[in-house]
Amino acid sequence: MPIRTLVWGENIHERTNAAVGAIYPDGMHTQIARLIGADSDISVETAVLQDHEHGLSEERLARTDVLVWWGHKAHGDVSDEIVERVALHVWSGMGLIVLHSGHFSKIFKRIMGSPCALTWREAGERERLWVVNPGHPIARGLPPFFELENEEMYGEPFSVPEPLETVLIGWFQGGEVFRSGLTYRRGAGNIFYFQPGHETYPTYHNETIGQVLRNAAKWAHNPNRYAALLSAPNRPVGEAMEPIEQRGAKLHSSGKDHGFT
Amino acid sequence: MPIRTLVWGENIHERTNAAVGAIYPDGMHTQIARLIGADSDISVETAVLQDHEHGLSEERLARTDVLVWWGHKAHGDVSDEIVERVALHVWSGMGLIVLHSGHFSKIFKRIMGSPCALTWREAGERERLWVVNPGHPIARGLPPFFELENEEMYGEPFSVPEPLETVLIGWFQGGEVFRSGLTYRRGAGNIFYFQPGHETYPTYHNETIGQVLRNAAKWAHNPNRYAALLSAPNRPVGEAMEPIEQRGAKLHSSGKDHGFT
Amino acid sequence: MPIRTLVWGENIHERTNAAVGAIYPDGMHTQIARLIGADSDISVETAVLQDHEHGLSEERLARTDVLVWWGHKAHGDVSDEIVERVALHVWSGMGLIVLHSGHFSKIFKRIMGSPCALTWREAGERERLWVVNPGHPIARGLPPFFELENEEMYGEPFSVPEPLETVLIGWFQGGEVFRSGLTYRRGAGNIFYFQPGHETYPTYHNETIGQVLRNAAKWAHNPNRYAALLSAPNRPVGEAMEPIEQRGAKLHSSGKDHGFT
Amino acid sequence: MPIRTLVWGENIHERTNAAVGAIYPDGMHTQIARLIGADSDISVETAVLQDHEHGLSEERLARTDVLVWWGHKAHGDVSDEIVERVALHVWSGMGLIVLHSGHFSKIFKRIMGSPCALTWREAGERERLWVVNPGHPIARGLPPFFELENEEMYGEPFSVPEPLETVLIGWFQGGEVFRSGLTYRRGAGNIFYFQPGHETYPTYHNETIGQVLRNAAKWAHNPNRYAALLSAPNRPVGEAMEPIEQRGAKLHSSGKDHGFT
Repeated sequence: MPIRTLVWGENIHERTNAAVGAIYPDGMHTQIARLIGADSDISVETAVLQDHEHGLSEERLARTDVLVWWGHKAHGDVSDEIVERVALHVWSGMGLIVLHSGHFSKIFKRIMGSPCALTWREAGERERLWVVNPGHPIARGLPPFFELENEEMYGEPFSVPEPLETVLIGWFQGGEVFRSGLTYRRGAGNIFYFQPGHETYPTYHNETIGQVLRNAAKWAHNPNRYAALLSAPNRPVGEAMEPIEQRGAKLHSSGKDHGFT
Repeated sequence: MPIRTLVWGENIHERTNAAVGAIYPDGMHTQIARLIGADSDISVETAVLQDHEHGLSEERLARTDVLVWWGHKAHGDVSDEIVERVALHVWSGMGLIVLHSGHFSKIFKRIMGSPCALTWREAGERERLWVVNPGHPIARGLPPFFELENEEMYGEPFSVPEPLETVLIGWFQGGEVFRSGLTYRRGAGNIFYFQPGHETYPTYHNETIGQVLRNAAKWAHNPNRYAALLSAPNRPVGEAMEPIEQRGAKLHSSGKDHGFT
Repeated sequence: MPIRTLVWGENIHERTNAAVGAIYPDGMHTQIARLIGADSDISVETAVLQDHEHGLSEERLARTDVLVWWGHKAHGDVSDEIVERVALHVWSGMGLIVLHSGHFSKIFKRIMGSPCALTWREAGERERLWVVNPGHPIARGLPPFFELENEEMYGEPFSVPEPLETVLIGWFQGGEVFRSGLTYRRGAGNIFYFQPGHETYPTYHNETIGQVLRNAAKWAHNPNRYAALLSAPNRPVGEAMEPIEQRGAKLHSSGKDHGFT
Repeated sequence: MPIRTLVWGENIHERTNAAVGAIYPDGMHTQIARLIGADSDISVETAVLQDHEHGLSEERLARTDVLVWWGHKAHGDVSDEIVERVALHVWSGMGLIVLHSGHFSKIFKRIMGSPCALTWREAGERERLWVVNPGHPIARGLPPFFELENEEMYGEPFSVPEPLETVLIGWFQGGEVFRSGLTYRRGAGNIFYFQPGHETYPTYHNETIGQVLRNAAKWAHNPNRYAALLSAPNRPVGEAMEPIEQRGAKLHSSGKDHGFT
């Protein structure tokens, strides 16, 4: 069975800004989905902010292996309830790929637990992305570096947690650097942050970007879900694996689980 | 100047449960503060849930180097607004030591971005804590292992992010293991999670526990604050360090910073 | 094409010690190979210390995807030259799974760069292995814990580098704990250390052990090799991606690469 | 007591190359020592390749808290025996700061266990070092970035293990990036790799470089040594912390420790 990806797009700039609309006439989410779906081992669907429940119903997330997130202008319009729903799926094992300005999305800030801030400049300058970890699955088949003639500058410090691994670092023409490809696991969910993708440039028409996204979808895919990571079950004394006796004072009545929230 | 620690306690069980009150007649926070304050390089104050603003006013956090957190029964009674305030201070550089059942506190779940769940059993069984990273500053002066004759069992999987370093692992008499001492950095804030400390046992009368807490306070202490990690400033083209020209389409008017939330 | 694994065994105890021979009449390497080869996506061969070049010729390593290493008594008899050859293959992308007493093998110490010491006791005591990272590919399909009724105790501190991720932790009947499943990457090579496997107990007849080994082989497999990680090439000024001029004094004549050793 | 640092220099180029001699008339090690010794909490000595035992006798290492290493041309002239001696001290808790071309020194390759390769260009181009982890002790007091008008380019991929933390990343005028400040722990020894420092440029006359080196010395300092991390002691059955009985077959006679090598 192919890896079931779902590309989520904010779907605003492409309809309200002529420059963006010219690059992505069918929407950014559609073009991102084309890149990812170019691999026959991956199936792809799309959802947008304007859909009912933002297209992220419980049922749909339950059949999603990897969620890809692009948002920028309307982070605040995403429902808190749905952000929590997505977080629960990530912790249970759904993969998550966060793109570009998604660094400030509710879902990314929620699962990073840190500010996720950075510096930025919208000058259409050159970015050169270097593979610093060629053996990582997300770097498979990539050249030593690749260039985007126009990108938005994102600069350090990027206030995210130290990653499991740094895969890519970006060099910017104006003088900055940025950790452009970072991996995390939260609960059982694999997470990849990937910096390129400003809406006024044709980044998602670049084939190497497509290769990174497909690699990331395969890396992030976990065929199982792990609901057990969400609850705090009591293990009664009588069921201990090694023989022990009840000692000391006790607060809890036996068998009562801690709830998650 | 000494390291300014603030020990925060929920302060409920010691007043409502006779067994806890007998062990901690002055409150758990008071006894934890005694352990930490036994080092003349560290000054200590306390605050409790019942204080105005839970004793965690903006002004007080601003003069706190390391916050120590013990809570269990009333996580839900902590104000969301104050949790966000604490998180901002941690990200800016205030240290945070989270104790025992604080694994499910709002502040710990907030900055971990993961479920922080585990398994548990309140049987007063023996725990033996092993130092797996003797060279870490938090392990300074510790023996290879130390024992608590009665502790609550906390068992894996502990659904927290992979730590920077694992310092201690606990062995439980009933057959479980637990990563009992874990380090993190979020923004500029150093965070230490330390598992022992169930309220019905005299854990905070143990001198080795005191040594760990004092070491952790010293490790977590950062003399500076880093407000810059919280904002996403624009870097105008004209101020770029290397000469570049504006190219391509542009969404933002120059000089407009991204807000944090 | 299946993943090509090569199981290397010291092949001494099973021929000289009656107890070991009774458990592994065809050699430990043969039984380990049976466990791994039970998955049709994996092909398996074996090699032993007594083979010409220990069965680890350049040609054979070049067609190996993942090398599995079991040694104990005769670490010192492994040729230094062949250890370096194996290291070069690991750094280039060959996976490596190091078993049990292999913690003190030349190849493991070589690529860890640390003492790799631990404490031990050969008492046939019970070990219970806990999955602390259920979402990791090496934990796929495993129960929350599994038991080995007889194992050699290995205790902390295990003086290895902090791993990329801790997957398994062992609980021992006599009171110790051990980080029993650890992942690393060195160059492009994925490395997994797995603690169980003392020769006087039937560990490699345990089906869950087999599941871990097969998962580890799949996780460690990298379809590419990356020879570029071994050399330090000069990038001449005239070929710089951004226009620069030669400035300042110069030590090297252009075009001379740094050698690796 | 101040932190006792020992700056080790190869001490060749400054005597044989006029350009280097003009910048460092007293030797590079002397100038590096001046930068580090500018803090009254740190005492400093120097040693050079040409000294008896390279100035790294057992006795001297035993009274060194942090060793600073600069070498380039003559890595091969450093005695293997002394490299092993230094490694044993690092694993036991001596700090180690490796500078620039020391990436290919025997001691760095020995304790990294990986190729430590990179790309390079000696063009005197501009480097701009970005602090990506402002809250790390090594970044204390640093500006967001600092510039070296002339440095040797070092480019990714740098085939070192994933660090504990990435502190600094370098931007190069010619288009490359490099992880310029990386932290590790091996055994109990704290290790910092710091990329700037080519001998034909006045890098060690830069005050910000001095600040990094002093911060690194303080971070790397561990007041204790941990010889226990080097040996693998047997824990006899009769001394187990929990009552167990000898079971199964046994290979070792009791009480025999595994040797380290």
